[in-house]
Amino acid sequence: MGDDTQAAQGRPAAMAGGRQADLQHFFAPRSVALIGATDDRSRFAGKVLMRLRNFGYAGTVYPVNPRFPEVGGLRCYADVGDLPEAPDHVGIVVPTPQVLPILEACAARGARFATVYSGGFAETGTAEGRALQAQVTALARRTGMRVMGPNCNGMVNFVDGFTMTTSATVAVRRPPGNVAVVAQSGGAGQVNVMWRAQEAGIGISYEVSCGNSADLNILDFIAFMVADAATDVVMVLAEHIPDGPRLLEVARMAAARAKPIVMVKLGRTAAGSHAAASHTGAMAGADDICDAALRQCGIIRVDDCNELYETAMLLRTRRLPRGRRAAATTISGGNGVLLVDLGASVGIEFPSYTAQTEAALAAMLPKHATTANPTDVTNAALGQPGLFHRCISAIAADDNVDVMVPIFTLASAGDIRQAVQAAQETDKPVALLWTGGCNDDPALTPSALAAEGVAVYRNTLACMKAVRASMDYAAFLRTAAVDAPTSRPADVDAPAAARLLDGVAGAMTERASKAVLAAYGLPVTVERLARDADEAVVAALAIGAAVAMKVESADIPHKTEADAIRLAVTGEAAVREAFDGIVACARRYRPEARIDGVLVQEMAGVGLEMMLGIVDDPVFGPVVVAGLGGIHVEVLDDVAFRVAPVSAREADDMLRSLRGWRLLQGVRGAAPRDIEAMRDAIVRLSWLAFDQRRGIAELDINPLVLFERGAGAKVVDALIVKKEGHGNAGTRH
Amino acid sequence: MGDDTQAAQGRPAAMAGGRQADLQHFFAPRSVALIGATDDRSRFAGKVLMRLRNFGYAGTVYPVNPRFPEVGGLRCYADVGDLPEAPDHVGIVVPTPQVLPILEACAARGARFATVYSGGFAETGTAEGRALQAQVTALARRTGMRVMGPNCNGMVNFVDGFTMTTSATVAVRRPPGNVAVVAQSGGAGQVNVMWRAQEAGIGISYEVSCGNSADLNILDFIAFMVADAATDVVMVLAEHIPDGPRLLEVARMAAARAKPIVMVKLGRTAAGSHAAASHTGAMAGADDICDAALRQCGIIRVDDCNELYETAMLLRTRRLPRGRRAAATTISGGNGVLLVDLGASVGIEFPSYTAQTEAALAAMLPKHATTANPTDVTNAALGQPGLFHRCISAIAADDNVDVMVPIFTLASAGDIRQAVQAAQETDKPVALLWTGGCNDDPALTPSALAAEGVAVYRNTLACMKAVRASMDYAAFLRTAAVDAPTSRPADVDAPAAARLLDGVAGAMTERASKAVLAAYGLPVTVERLARDADEAVVAALAIGAAVAMKVESADIPHKTEADAIRLAVTGEAAVREAFDGIVACARRYRPEARIDGVLVQEMAGVGLEMMLGIVDDPVFGPVVVAGLGGIHVEVLDDVAFRVAPVSAREADDMLRSLRGWRLLQGVRGAAPRDIEAMRDAIVRLSWLAFDQRRGIAELDINPLVLFERGAGAKVVDALIVKKEGHGNAGTRH
Repeated sequence: MGDDTQAAQGRPAAMAGGRQADLQHFFAPRSVALIGATDDRSRFAGKVLMRLRNFGYAGTVYPVNPRFPEVGGLRCYADVGDLPEAPDHVGIVVPTPQVLPILEACAARGARFATVYSGGFAETGTAEGRALQAQVTALARRTGMRVMGPNCNGMVNFVDGFTMTTSATVAVRRPPGNVAVVAQSGGAGQVNVMWRAQEAGIGISYEVSCGNSADLNILDFIAFMVADAATDVVMVLAEHIPDGPRLLEVARMAAARAKPIVMVKLGRTAAGSHAAASHTGAMAGADDICDAALRQCGIIRVDDCNELYETAMLLRTRRLPRGRRAAATTISGGNGVLLVDLGASVGIEFPSYTAQTEAALAAMLPKHATTANPTDVTNAALGQPGLFHRCISAIAADDNVDVMVPIFTLASAGDIRQAVQAAQETDKPVALLWTGGCNDDPALTPSALAAEGVAVYRNTLACMKAVRASMDYAAFLRTAAVDAPTSRPADVDAPAAARLLDGVAGAMTERASKAVLAAYGLPVTVERLARDADEAVVAALAIGAAVAMKVESADIPHKTEADAIRLAVTGEAAVREAFDGIVACARRYRPEARIDGVLVQEMAGVGLEMMLGIVDDPVFGPVVVAGLGGIHVEVLDDVAFRVAPVSAREADDMLRSLRGWRLLQGVRGAAPRDIEAMRDAIVRLSWLAFDQRRGIAELDINPLVLFERGAGAKVVDALIVKKEGHGNAGTRH
Repeated sequence: MGDDTQAAQGRPAAMAGGRQADLQHFFAPRSVALIGATDDRSRFAGKVLMRLRNFGYAGTVYPVNPRFPEVGGLRCYADVGDLPEAPDHVGIVVPTPQVLPILEACAARGARFATVYSGGFAETGTAEGRALQAQVTALARRTGMRVMGPNCNGMVNFVDGFTMTTSATVAVRRPPGNVAVVAQSGGAGQVNVMWRAQEAGIGISYEVSCGNSADLNILDFIAFMVADAATDVVMVLAEHIPDGPRLLEVARMAAARAKPIVMVKLGRTAAGSHAAASHTGAMAGADDICDAALRQCGIIRVDDCNELYETAMLLRTRRLPRGRRAAATTISGGNGVLLVDLGASVGIEFPSYTAQTEAALAAMLPKHATTANPTDVTNAALGQPGLFHRCISAIAADDNVDVMVPIFTLASAGDIRQAVQAAQETDKPVALLWTGGCNDDPALTPSALAAEGVAVYRNTLACMKAVRASMDYAAFLRTAAVDAPTSRPADVDAPAAARLLDGVAGAMTERASKAVLAAYGLPVTVERLARDADEAVVAALAIGAAVAMKVESADIPHKTEADAIRLAVTGEAAVREAFDGIVACARRYRPEARIDGVLVQEMAGVGLEMMLGIVDDPVFGPVVVAGLGGIHVEVLDDVAFRVAPVSAREADDMLRSLRGWRLLQGVRGAAPRDIEAMRDAIVRLSWLAFDQRRGIAELDINPLVLFERGAGAKVVDALIVKKEGHGNAGTRH
């Protein structure tokens, strides 16, 4: 039941292996030691110490280096064991072979956190490097001292004023803000994300470049920042996801606090090579799955580093749009057209205003102005006292409008300040699109305005993408709030499925695979094994309609080749004749075959062919895949993924995301399909995937035939491949 | 033949209606008059005059305004007729009703060019405004005086030093460069494109914001800039394309000079609403066609204004890559991963270096550096004398490398200068990706470097997109250089097709439509009309295989409903029986029907169903559309467009651009289709579309059945809809 409760919240606790670390004293240590400290600022440790001291750190600093009696005017200790107190955080810059002994000494001295800058570990790609890194991991687990790195470039805390890094990005201690940065990379995380965000006027709370992640990884840091009061948005540059289920767990925490996570996840293109493969295992390009998993848990994925802070620019205001409707004011008609065109291309609506708003605008605007949306106030509005303020306020107050976008090109400080005032007075999100500069005040720049907390954009598409991300995030939170918890359908017989899977190895037969599906309530074709013609007649009568008949023999996998299949058999005489014919054909085809009998199977009928499957993703675990069958899956790669288990709503999202969705709705006069049955099949399969994840390597249903609305669905063919070396199905009931 | 020669170059001369204007004295007038001139700088004309004079214009300025004896210290004329000479260029800022009389007076005084800033014309959306604008057009045509505007914000010439605009973007006369800007919009063209490009360090030659385009339009200006020696790249922000065929002609001129045109074309989203429609006419969402036409003629389309100058940043160096292979150096491993991931996502390859290059790099780089591509020189390389220069030069010299991308985050001026030197020494394109700032020289900024002519990028994806655009453009020029000229297949019987189309109105029958297709050599099903059973037998014998038989009656359009179709009829007896049965069924179904006989038709056989069609686009004229049939066209909108006529290579490009392309190549053991036959059908149909463009409103072939390689194709069903009011088919032979 404990497991069920976890699963009811969506994810399996057992797979989320990380310990929740309290990183308070990692980021804000009361005392810090730097092993390898030196006054030589051309050396790594010398740079770190210089940055640390320039940053105005208020705690105690202990340089450690046997070669110097004093470093930077501070007493230098020969050994960490000599320190007068246990340091909260130790920075380690020593040759690779000394790292482990030093870590042991730090742990022995009671250090709570260590950051290892030194390289020479897993990043070398050598077995030796990997083994060394595994020892770091083991040491952290054994001693309880948490370790960042090795091969990393440290961290920055703008809130409390602490940093240990070489990066020149912290040469100046900028004012803190409510956006955090988590990266594995040093240069990209510190420069492309943090420094650039700061240059754009966005204040940063914390930054980490956590490197090889032998112990602490990006998820530990994201979790800390999500829980941290100073942080409202987390920007992540991830080269890999260390633990899929834990990421989903952290994302759930973030959603509960309405703190968006924006992520660049590298590895988009590795998936490309798998895209065309026709079976679900190979189609499951890891990036497709990652993309689906991130969407599923509300993480906003973007492509490049600048999009991280462009997206955070609006989200950090903590105002979320109620819907997808935007409005704009502009002094440049062309910019209005551009905004609507690019906005619509990313799914943003530009509604009409209420008659009341239109009338208010008509009363206040110049003669040639447009009172429609976007509102072209024309050049004549420039410099008119209070006009921008009144106009933007009137539009922002309109019930049809969810997001307000005042557009400026070159403008005076007075006009821009009016827009800022209007933005501060409304409770709706406002994205200021300012493509030019300020005419009369060189100090009033977009980044200066952003530093005041305004969401300022330079480019139209970037603005519209950020607005769209904000709309999507708000919709995600609304859905998450009202979504029924994912729960296992009551009629699932998990123990029966586990028994059926138990002890079987490799690929299972269609009949055995379908039996497992049936235990989870998936609608499989009715079928009976008949050992003689009499039994076949009884079976056919029980099925009560035309039947398909196939030889049942482990020795005859290719039944068609053996001419050992008969379709649409009706009536006692025909069933008897088919039975005899099939057995005769099978004997002729392979005289030594062990024939168990003939499978008498319900005919599935005609419908839309779908495919459904389970993929065992190395990062996210059991994943459900759904799509249309035939060329859709084979050629067009038109499939959707979700981490199991999934809710009915998520199943619905999967289907709607397919290019072929309209085929389910009914197209060109064809009747709509039984979408409810398809959703149900996905949910059931997802629970099978989740419950039996230790046993199932791969599962393919192709086709599942989907009938007209109300007529259900039928699994016509299915194949389960067991995990290697798996004896127990893994259900814990 | 004259028409054929034009067409052999790809486009019909008759449809390119624009006069080629020599705009030399528009941009660099020896004398200029400003009607409505005033010293009041809060007024439009006052601003224009201030900008003009501040810009350092060296020619003669004639203020014209009956209200002042002197403006800006210059003699002011009461009337343009009073001027001592005919001005090259007149700027007009007067109330709307005065515009036409003033234009008449200007033309009478011999002015060569006029720019009308005043609004109140077609942009009002009123019939009155449109009529007024039509009068401006007529005046320009009649007098030969070329007019820009109305409702525009003028132009800038940074090369010769002349401007007439209110825009504060020309408050400072920046140094000229080799990139031009053409826009309809004032604010967006002048600020989002021109000013921002200049801020990024890109020099501009000319800018126009041409407004309503009553006479001169964006194509006139693009043509001027393409021909102009000072301009190498043209950036265009187009709200609409005034004349599709002329755009293609201008693009051909640009390609001949290897001068790329980069374009934002608004109106992407209007197409969305048409996307799902199932017949070619409606599917021909104008934006899809525009997109295809731009690609067809080598115009680089981008989404937003910043992408215009980001793309031009590299193209303006006039170095084009020989292939799609890029290499990078980086001091930040994360940035190397990011570059490869985003580069690969836009189709850029990162090849291995030659063994020679690898050895050279190994000899020069620090111990922990990567000699592979991307080359991580590590932090240890920073500040090493000459190292970046040697390393980048060695890689740029590698035969496997087409484009070089040195990446910097925060770096010293010395290191960056080394990369710049290496970029200057190689003849390959170099895109410097510089995500941070300069450590030791605040004056060395990305835009300062760009102002020196270096292609500098701040963001990885933008850099990779620009590199990709450069690769695409180079490939386009290579293809255009070797491409066989589009020519009408020799066996086309255009006069026969014209006769068949002549005098028919509305929708044509399948049989009549197929006859037109047959005249262009498209492979239609063989069919004969049999008036009695004997003729049917003869027809069936002539066809020589199983036949399809259908009643031929204008009164029975729904033959299936009448049960008046027989398929796969074989042998004399069966043909006779089918004939009698069809006639009997038809009589029973509609006793009063006039029955011409029975159509005896070849059975098409089984193959891949394709669709082909002609759309009459209001901008680009006759356009060919091709795609896979069935759900591909109906649900997935998987179609490709090209402006007719098209070459075999273009036809091949169309097919390769389909998502379903793999179905033509043969998938899952299916034999490859006869792609050659499909290409041939597209080319023939494109000539039909082009030759008969005055008569054909719409043409649908669905399906065309495509057989296995070598077995050809067959048009199974076809429908031509004639243009309304068209009597003559329009072929000029």
